[in-house]
Amino acid sequence: MINQQYPSKLLERAVSETSKLPGVGRKSALRLVLHLLRKDAAQTHALADSLLRLRDDVKFCKYCHNISDTEVCDICADQRRDRSTICVVENVQNVMAVEATGQFKGLYHVLGGVISPMDGIGPNDLQIESLVKRVGEGAIKEVIFALNPTMEGDTTNFYISRRLQALDLPSTSVKLSVLARGVCVGDDLEYTDEVTLGRSIVDRVAFKS
Amino acid sequence: MINQQYPSKLLERAVSETSKLPGVGRKSALRLVLHLLRKDAAQTHALADSLLRLRDDVKFCKYCHNISDTEVCDICADQRRDRSTICVVENVQNVMAVEATGQFKGLYHVLGGVISPMDGIGPNDLQIESLVKRVGEGAIKEVIFALNPTMEGDTTNFYISRRLQALDLPSTSVKLSVLARGVCVGDDLEYTDEVTLGRSIVDRVAFKS
Repeated sequence: MINQQYPSKLLERAVSETSKLPGVGRKSALRLVLHLLRKDAAQTHALADSLLRLRDDVKFCKYCHNISDTEVCDICADQRRDRSTICVVENVQNVMAVEATGQFKGLYHVLGGVISPMDGIGPNDLQIESLVKRVGEGAIKEVIFALNPTMEGDTTNFYISRRLQALDLPSTSVKLSVLARGVCVGDDLEYTDEVTLGRSIVDRVAFKS
Repeated sequence: MINQQYPSKLLERAVSETSKLPGVGRKSALRLVLHLLRKDAAQTHALADSLLRLRDDVKFCKYCHNISDTEVCDICADQRRDRSTICVVENVQNVMAVEATGQFKGLYHVLGGVISPMDGIGPNDLQIESLVKRVGEGAIKEVIFALNPTMEGDTTNFYISRRLQALDLPSTSVKLSVLARGVCVGDDLEYTDEVTLGRSIVDRVAFKS
């Protein structure tokens, strides 16, 4: 149904705009906007307003570049957090994922992506310069790479590590670390891929009973 | 991740509003709104505006109740269409589906749902009264029931047929018909359910070579 006729131009435009969202086809878009038509007008107004407010008023923290309502985000502004450790992540979702573990009490640095020549994303498209500058100021003791365990993530880790080494800080001053890679908690070894399983043997840790 | 902390109230509100849409969870909503943040602000403005315009300005045709930009929809206003035949459908999508076949040149009547006691939807929640009135005016020669072939659709067909019979029009004046039920074009008989296959045998038609 490529040349589907919409009974209304307003409907057609709403479907066109909605179907620009990732993963939303024209059929889903039609279903979504017709849902809004069945609901109270207040719901549509609240949705539109929330999107406009977010798009127009949201800020990015001037230190870690995470999404924030203020110039400095809540995490960077929180004096109880360990200000000597930076966890490098790709995006906002990954900050939320690490925060949800409750296992990290340091600061973040949101790159806004990873180096991916295939997608035309180079180091200058990411917040790498500002990370190097933060570390160069001398107060950071550890940088934890928490990018996705993919080729692009690994490339980005490597690039950043080279840039940090080039800072020529006293060799013992900044520790670089990366998330442990190994079998997932609850997983079945039979179905764990061999690279991950191999890595979990090489990186085995002392057994604690 | 039930108690996920959003780094921004604006983000949290946009996610909350977006996740009220059917089939959109909080994770998908987050992905959608972050996509908008990466794109030009104009895209978000166009999306919000299109939804508001649709919700606030859209009309429903005073004859067939289909979505329309005008008091009378394009189909009802089109004098080339057969004004003696009404195709009864559940919703806008089904008007579009029938139109896309190019096989129907009459008018529509959009009920806005089907009778479903389970969902608390009775005849008075639907545009049945106005259909009975349209037919009662005497110019209609055929009413085609094109509701989904479900229990609710069949119940609604039955209810409407009773209401139309109660109009006490000359018995030959209005023909009631329903979409043929049978095997789908391109389907494999082995996987056609027995009710449909049985129906296709009972309702077999003359073979045309």
